[in-house]
Amino acid sequence: MSKYQHLREAAYLANLQLPELGLVLFTFGNVSAADADAGVFAIKPSGVPYADLREEDMVIVDFDGKTVEGRLRPSSDTATHAVLYKNWPGIGGIAHTHSVYATAWAQALSPIPLMGTTHADHLTCDIPCAPPMDDSRITGNYEYETGFQIMDHFRDLDLNYTQTEMVLVGNHAPFTWGKTPEKAVYNSAVLENLAHMAYMSRLINPSAGRMKDSLIKKHHDRKHGQNAYYGQK
Amino acid sequence: MSKYQHLREAAYLANLQLPELGLVLFTFGNVSAADADAGVFAIKPSGVPYADLREEDMVIVDFDGKTVEGRLRPSSDTATHAVLYKNWPGIGGIAHTHSVYATAWAQALSPIPLMGTTHADHLTCDIPCAPPMDDSRITGNYEYETGFQIMDHFRDLDLNYTQTEMVLVGNHAPFTWGKTPEKAVYNSAVLENLAHMAYMSRLINPSAGRMKDSLIKKHHDRKHGQNAYYGQK
Amino acid sequence: MSKYQHLREAAYLANLQLPELGLVLFTFGNVSAADADAGVFAIKPSGVPYADLREEDMVIVDFDGKTVEGRLRPSSDTATHAVLYKNWPGIGGIAHTHSVYATAWAQALSPIPLMGTTHADHLTCDIPCAPPMDDSRITGNYEYETGFQIMDHFRDLDLNYTQTEMVLVGNHAPFTWGKTPEKAVYNSAVLENLAHMAYMSRLINPSAGRMKDSLIKKHHDRKHGQNAYYGQK
Amino acid sequence: MSKYQHLREAAYLANLQLPELGLVLFTFGNVSAADADAGVFAIKPSGVPYADLREEDMVIVDFDGKTVEGRLRPSSDTATHAVLYKNWPGIGGIAHTHSVYATAWAQALSPIPLMGTTHADHLTCDIPCAPPMDDSRITGNYEYETGFQIMDHFRDLDLNYTQTEMVLVGNHAPFTWGKTPEKAVYNSAVLENLAHMAYMSRLINPSAGRMKDSLIKKHHDRKHGQNAYYGQK
Repeated sequence: MSKYQHLREAAYLANLQLPELGLVLFTFGNVSAADADAGVFAIKPSGVPYADLREEDMVIVDFDGKTVEGRLRPSSDTATHAVLYKNWPGIGGIAHTHSVYATAWAQALSPIPLMGTTHADHLTCDIPCAPPMDDSRITGNYEYETGFQIMDHFRDLDLNYTQTEMVLVGNHAPFTWGKTPEKAVYNSAVLENLAHMAYMSRLINPSAGRMKDSLIKKHHDRKHGQNAYYGQK
Repeated sequence: MSKYQHLREAAYLANLQLPELGLVLFTFGNVSAADADAGVFAIKPSGVPYADLREEDMVIVDFDGKTVEGRLRPSSDTATHAVLYKNWPGIGGIAHTHSVYATAWAQALSPIPLMGTTHADHLTCDIPCAPPMDDSRITGNYEYETGFQIMDHFRDLDLNYTQTEMVLVGNHAPFTWGKTPEKAVYNSAVLENLAHMAYMSRLINPSAGRMKDSLIKKHHDRKHGQNAYYGQK
Repeated sequence: MSKYQHLREAAYLANLQLPELGLVLFTFGNVSAADADAGVFAIKPSGVPYADLREEDMVIVDFDGKTVEGRLRPSSDTATHAVLYKNWPGIGGIAHTHSVYATAWAQALSPIPLMGTTHADHLTCDIPCAPPMDDSRITGNYEYETGFQIMDHFRDLDLNYTQTEMVLVGNHAPFTWGKTPEKAVYNSAVLENLAHMAYMSRLINPSAGRMKDSLIKKHHDRKHGQNAYYGQK
Repeated sequence: MSKYQHLREAAYLANLQLPELGLVLFTFGNVSAADADAGVFAIKPSGVPYADLREEDMVIVDFDGKTVEGRLRPSSDTATHAVLYKNWPGIGGIAHTHSVYATAWAQALSPIPLMGTTHADHLTCDIPCAPPMDDSRITGNYEYETGFQIMDHFRDLDLNYTQTEMVLVGNHAPFTWGKTPEKAVYNSAVLENLAHMAYMSRLINPSAGRMKDSLIKKHHDRKHGQNAYYGQK
């Protein structure tokens, strides 16, 4: 038995959550589960329908994007996952979907404005939208560059990836992450929910703005601050 | 056996209605069931997924927001429920969700206009949207103040909580109530339906206005007036 | 056994179709089944949830709106059904829902424009929207007057109820009818589909107009003309 | 046993996919499966509900639109299928639906702009929208002419049907095709997904434009180019 069996299982179960949460059509999404100590992650094989997926199909890849174990070809987005794992220590899972509301904002090249407490319960800034890459990056090692484009945008906006666990890639779709693959998938579902509500709020009142800072801070702190009182201890 | 078992059961069953009616994602909602004579209410524990919820997990809290019985931490919105129960006699249940259409209006800081008979069958005014609180209230006892903000807004608009059983809290989400927890949940589903239809009516015809008073009165009276003839006797 | 058992069964089965087709929330809709020779129709009792409905609960009412058989109070919209049955011979079923897309157009006080062949497959004009009634009609025998308001609007637009089997009542919701209760319910589902698509077409292209007459005629005739070739002989 | 049994089975199974993927209301759609060597295709009978459909009901038709085998009348859109099979060699399946988002764009007489990588993963141009036909074509052999209208529009835009496997027919609805009937149905679902997302992107940001060419080429090539690396070998 492979020593990566626990990773395969974690990635497998997290991938199955995507269709269950209504976040994917056909094969348009993937989740990975990482083990930082071993320097590898398990990821969905490319183009395999979720209904046909088996635990043993998960591909083990190192943080440079090289396949370590597995007979199938890993997700075509594997290099993006690898770059993020290598550069953002502490991430244990990454999810990528083309969920319709989040992708609609990405196609509109617009960050998702922070308009309510549902949003502030999860992050204290607009959901960032990384601009499309320069042509040289696109024609180069595209999926690696997607990872760097995300990181560059976080640096430009002075965002911390441990606090803001989601991003839109302009003209493409969202990536989310977290300490575990379950958290990464949870963040994908939350992002889709926020994208849906902000879309409608904007259509109801195009001049409705950002929620005020005091309320953002309050809602974030009651869930994530030092004296958080949301959830069980 | 606890003397509050009937309350726990009522709150438990009402909470399970929220996912069944499509009103909540993950744990984003809660219902409470009150016993005015005993001066307590049962409420969902904070952050527990609906699928894992058990009747005995419901927390018994008094009308000052203090836990009377229960091993789990009550919903983070508990103080809002307590304030409303304490100040609005006759309410037997309160529901709070982040249902997408109602929340979209709350994020747009807009009341939901009364545009049709579905709305008038349930209330005779626009669904009010309480403005975001002053910073002093937000940084103070936030959830208590949310209750007072709702009550202040009802007073400013001269609304009667026994006739208008729902409110949007600006930048946050809806609260609904009723004589029983079932009625509170029913009101949450009706509010979501009204929010959905008003959203589309406004996009179809931005200049479409409020329904005329005679029709509002007629529809309300046939369901709630002295000679009501909707439903069974 | 009542001689109206076949009518009760037809009305019962047609009413159950409403929730199955996603056309109603809670009790917001009703279907009736008429027997023109007997001069009566069977209709849903008022305010009874679909899940609790039994065949024997259907109320038998004559074309003047008087209850002939049944222990329960009939739908509050019964008089509207009665007026249409009495004045529009050949109708065997009527359905009334508050389905969200159709109701949104009714609330916008706008007819639904004929923009495509799906619409022309079923009727050759915009779906009419009867204006809200004068106050005297509203404060009078409201539900009877709703029937007359529909008929007056058809007369004003020179529409034939055997060819146009659906209408929006402004600020209220749709009514549909047909030779059988099944056809009336089918028309409610088709109307909702047309309302959904026209809503989106208008948002995509606000200046998109009506489909041209030659195409309307072609699609209608291939399904309903003398040489119709849609469906089985 | 008919020598066309394999075609009937293929068409039958592909037709059942339409309701399963949420692409049809009632009978509003049809799929055919062709055998180019035999010069025939199997197609859904006209107006038969999917729930009642049986494999042996599929009608065998030649590429001139004449029925070869089958007791039922073929889909009223049969001639459109025949024209495309006759003139576009290599197509093994065609699907036609009135799916709501794609049809909304067709009713708006607008091509669907290429705004993201989900779109570019499948085709490198806007999804074309053939204009409504001249009256002479409409009053002539309408369904044959629909096939020619599609082909003419592809010629006008210099599109290749082996690369662009979907089209909107203005004021009508979409047609999709592929090497197999399964691929044709897959394309219908993808088209609906693209139509949904582009609709929302346009409402979020009306001035958001087409995705840049380098990114279109990259995404298309990684899935369909000579060195494609999406999916399994």
